[in-house]
Amino acid sequence: MDLNSDLGEGFGAWKMGDDEAMLDIVTSANIACGFHAGDPSVMRRVCELAAERGVAIGAHVGYRDLAGFGRRALDIAPDALADEVLYQIGALDAFARAAGSRVTYVKPHGALYNTAAVDPEQAAAIVAGLRRYDPALALLCLPDSEMQREAEKAGVVAYAEAFADRAYTADGKLVSRKKPGAVLHDPDAVAERAIGMATGGVVTEDGSKLDVRPDSLCVHGDTPGAVELARRIEAALTAAGVQLGAFTG
Amino acid sequence: MDLNSDLGEGFGAWKMGDDEAMLDIVTSANIACGFHAGDPSVMRRVCELAAERGVAIGAHVGYRDLAGFGRRALDIAPDALADEVLYQIGALDAFARAAGSRVTYVKPHGALYNTAAVDPEQAAAIVAGLRRYDPALALLCLPDSEMQREAEKAGVVAYAEAFADRAYTADGKLVSRKKPGAVLHDPDAVAERAIGMATGGVVTEDGSKLDVRPDSLCVHGDTPGAVELARRIEAALTAAGVQLGAFTG
Amino acid sequence: MDLNSDLGEGFGAWKMGDDEAMLDIVTSANIACGFHAGDPSVMRRVCELAAERGVAIGAHVGYRDLAGFGRRALDIAPDALADEVLYQIGALDAFARAAGSRVTYVKPHGALYNTAAVDPEQAAAIVAGLRRYDPALALLCLPDSEMQREAEKAGVVAYAEAFADRAYTADGKLVSRKKPGAVLHDPDAVAERAIGMATGGVVTEDGSKLDVRPDSLCVHGDTPGAVELARRIEAALTAAGVQLGAFTG
Amino acid sequence: MDLNSDLGEGFGAWKMGDDEAMLDIVTSANIACGFHAGDPSVMRRVCELAAERGVAIGAHVGYRDLAGFGRRALDIAPDALADEVLYQIGALDAFARAAGSRVTYVKPHGALYNTAAVDPEQAAAIVAGLRRYDPALALLCLPDSEMQREAEKAGVVAYAEAFADRAYTADGKLVSRKKPGAVLHDPDAVAERAIGMATGGVVTEDGSKLDVRPDSLCVHGDTPGAVELARRIEAALTAAGVQLGAFTG
Repeated sequence: MDLNSDLGEGFGAWKMGDDEAMLDIVTSANIACGFHAGDPSVMRRVCELAAERGVAIGAHVGYRDLAGFGRRALDIAPDALADEVLYQIGALDAFARAAGSRVTYVKPHGALYNTAAVDPEQAAAIVAGLRRYDPALALLCLPDSEMQREAEKAGVVAYAEAFADRAYTADGKLVSRKKPGAVLHDPDAVAERAIGMATGGVVTEDGSKLDVRPDSLCVHGDTPGAVELARRIEAALTAAGVQLGAFTG
Repeated sequence: MDLNSDLGEGFGAWKMGDDEAMLDIVTSANIACGFHAGDPSVMRRVCELAAERGVAIGAHVGYRDLAGFGRRALDIAPDALADEVLYQIGALDAFARAAGSRVTYVKPHGALYNTAAVDPEQAAAIVAGLRRYDPALALLCLPDSEMQREAEKAGVVAYAEAFADRAYTADGKLVSRKKPGAVLHDPDAVAERAIGMATGGVVTEDGSKLDVRPDSLCVHGDTPGAVELARRIEAALTAAGVQLGAFTG
Repeated sequence: MDLNSDLGEGFGAWKMGDDEAMLDIVTSANIACGFHAGDPSVMRRVCELAAERGVAIGAHVGYRDLAGFGRRALDIAPDALADEVLYQIGALDAFARAAGSRVTYVKPHGALYNTAAVDPEQAAAIVAGLRRYDPALALLCLPDSEMQREAEKAGVVAYAEAFADRAYTADGKLVSRKKPGAVLHDPDAVAERAIGMATGGVVTEDGSKLDVRPDSLCVHGDTPGAVELARRIEAALTAAGVQLGAFTG
Repeated sequence: MDLNSDLGEGFGAWKMGDDEAMLDIVTSANIACGFHAGDPSVMRRVCELAAERGVAIGAHVGYRDLAGFGRRALDIAPDALADEVLYQIGALDAFARAAGSRVTYVKPHGALYNTAAVDPEQAAAIVAGLRRYDPALALLCLPDSEMQREAEKAGVVAYAEAFADRAYTADGKLVSRKKPGAVLHDPDAVAERAIGMATGGVVTEDGSKLDVRPDSLCVHGDTPGAVELARRIEAALTAAGVQLGAFTG
C-alpha cells in the first residue's frame, strides 16, 4: 500500500505543513509545481528530501491561481490546460532529476482534481499534457472518475486513491463535506479505516460493506495534528502487516 | 554564423513581435519561459514552429517579473536564482521535446543579462542552474563578461554574441545607449556591420578596427521594422557567402 | 446616448488598443484595474487622458487572472469577490482623483460580466463591493440580468448597455456568438443599428422589431479597425441628431 | 509613544503572524497592500479589526514581488514606483474607509524601505505617490534617511521610528545585521531599551549614550515569540509611565 501526501505547498516567505516530517512517513510525494503553490526553491528542497528517502515524486499540477491556492474552479480551455500541465511536469522533473530521481506520476490538485473527476474535457487535457511529457507517467486519481476513464482511453496507467478520513456512500463515492459525519476526526477510527482499505474494505454511511481497493491512501500534512495522524496511519498499517511502498515503485 | 532572436514574448491575450516571420530567418530562437514573458501555450507554439524549421531552441531565462518584462534588476539571492533558472529550462524543454526538439542552450534576458555580465554571483547562479539541468547545454552571452568567465570556470561552453546595430568602443564594449550614435538605424549600415562581424571585424566609435568574432548575431524581432531588418541582415550575409547555421548545430 | 469602451488594457511592456484615439470618441471609459489587465502606470495615463477630455471614468473590474485576461469563469467565493471589487475600485479611484476626476461607475469585465449576468451570488458580490466603496456609484450592465436585478435590490442605479454589432433575439437577448450572423461586421449595418438603438429599436434575428432602449452603446477599441468603426458609429449618431454624453454626466 | 507593527502579511491560503493579537497591542498598523503580501480579504479583515480597536491604519507599500515578499531590491523607474505607491494607498484606503477609518500614513516595506533610506530617487517617488493621494498623509520612516529628507522637501510630515531590539552605532545608525550583537534577543534588554527610547536615549555599541527620540517603536509580530515580546514592551512602557498612542492620532 502507498501513502501519498500533498507537499511543497509553501510559497516564498510563506510556509505550509512540515514537508520533512511527512517525507519520513509517506511513500509518494505530490509536489506543487508553482501554479497553485510552491516555488523553485521549495521544489528543489522537497525533491532533494524525497530523493534522499526514496519517496516517489509526483507532479501535483494545479490551476494557475496562487491567490486561490488552486481551490477555485477555472473554466480554462482544454488546450491551454494541457499546456499548463506539460509546463508544470517539465519544471518539477528538472528538480527531481537534479536530485537524482524523476517524476513518475501526476496528480491534479484541488479544484482541478474535483473538476477533472466529472469533466471529461479537463480530464482529457490533463492526460494529454501528461502523455506529451512521457506516456509512461502514471495518473493518481479518484477511482470511477472521468480522470480514470480518460487515462485508460489514452493508455495511461491510472492508480486509485482513497481517503481514510472520509465517509463513503454505498456506491463508493465520497460523502459530501456538507453532510455531518463526512470527515472522520477520531484518529483510532481513521487508522482502522486505513487498515480496512488496505485489507478488505470499509463500512459505508449506510452500514454496508464497501470493497474499496485503492492503490494509495491520501494523508494530509498541512497541520501539526495531521502529521501525527499520518504517523498513526503508517504505524497501524505496519502493525497490521501491510507493507508500504510507492505504487510506482 | 548564427542569427539569434528573442521570441515567444507574448503573454496571454497580449502579443509581441511576429514569431513566425522571425523563425523563417533566425537559426537560434531564445524562447521566453514564463518568468518575464511567455506562457505555456506560447511556448508550445513557438517550440513547434522552431522544431519544424530546424531552428535551435534556447531557454531565454529571466527574472520573475512579468510586470517589468524582466527589464529591472532584481537583487535575488544566487541560490534562488539558480533554482529559477533550472525551473525555466525544465519547463521549456518539456515543450521542445514534445515538439521533437530539445533545449540546447541558455541565454539570460534583459536585466538578468546585464547584471550577469558584470556580477559574478548572478552569473555563477545562472551557470549553476544550467549545469544542474544538463552540463552539455551551452551559454549564449556577451563576450568578455562575468557570464562567460563563470561558464568557462564551470566547464560550460560559452558562445559569444554581437549586435550589428550597436556601436562598439575600441576595447570591444558596447557604447552606452545614452550616447548619440550608440544604436544604428540605417539598414544598409547594419547589414554591412553584420557582414564585417561575420568576416573580419567592425569599425569602432573612434575609427579603429575591432576584430569581433562572434558565434552569433542577435537580431530583434519585436517590431514590423525589425523583421524587415532581420531579413536584410540574413540576405546580406548570404550574399556575402556567409553560411548561416545554429552555433549548437 | 453614451458610448463606452474597455480601455487601459495594456500590461507592462504589452500594449492593447489605442486608448488615446478611443478617448476622443467615447463618453465613458471602462478602465482595467490591474486584475485582468492594466497596471498602475497604464491606469494613471488613461485616467489623465480621460479627465482631460471630460470622459467619465468607470472601474472595469475583473477576475484576478492576467494570464487569461479575465475571460475565464472563476468560481470565487462571493465574499472574496466583493473584496476584490472594492480593492479595484479603490485603486482606480486613486488615479481618477489624482487626475482631477473620479470613478462614477463600475462595469464587470469578460467572464465576470458573463457570470454575473446569470449568477445572483456573483452579481450580488459585485454590487456589495461597489456599495461598500460608495453607494452612489452606478453599475453599467446587461439589461434584464442578475446584475441589474441585484443592483436594483440594493438601491444601486443600473444603466443598461447594448451592442450595435451584435444580433439580438426577439426577447432581447444577444444571439450566441456560436451562431452565424451573431456578430455584424459591415460598418454601415452597425452604424445603422446604433442609430436604431438610440432612437427606436432594432430588427431581431427573426425579423421582428425590438424596442431596445440602452443607456449606453459599447464600442470596441482593441484593433485599428475597431477604432474606425467607433468613429463611424459616433459620426452616424451625431448626424442622426443623437446627442452624445456620459450616462453618469 | 506609538507602537507600530507590520500586519496583514498573509496571502490567500498562507498565514503569517497573529494579526488579531498584535492589534490588541500596537497603536499603528502597517497593513500590506497586496504587492509584497496581503490580499483584498486579508486587507478587509485587518482594517476592520484595526478600526474596531482605534488602531491607526498605515499603507505598508512594497515592491510588486510576492515571490520575494518585497525583500529584494528592484530597480524600478521612479515614475512607475510612484504609480505603484498611489495604487496601493488607494486600494487599502477603500478597506479602511469601508471599516469606518482611513489611511493616515505610509510606511515602505522591506527592500523598498532599505532602498528608499539611501536612494533619493526612490524616496522621492514614494513621497510623490503619497502626495498625489493626499498631501496630509504622514510618512513613517527611518530618521536621518533620504525618505525623511524627501518628505520634508515636499512638505510631507515624516515620523521617525526606532527598533528596540536593534543595536545602534554612536552616530545613530542601525548596526548591520551581519555583526554579532546587532539584534537583541533578551526580552528584558529589549523592554529596557524601549523605555530608554521613549524617555531619554539608549546605549550604543561603543557604550556611548545616544539621544534617540523616535515617534514610534517598531515591534515585530510574525512569530508567536514576537507577540509575547510586543506585549512585554507594551507592559514595560506602560509601567514606566509612557503613554501609548498613534503618532497620527
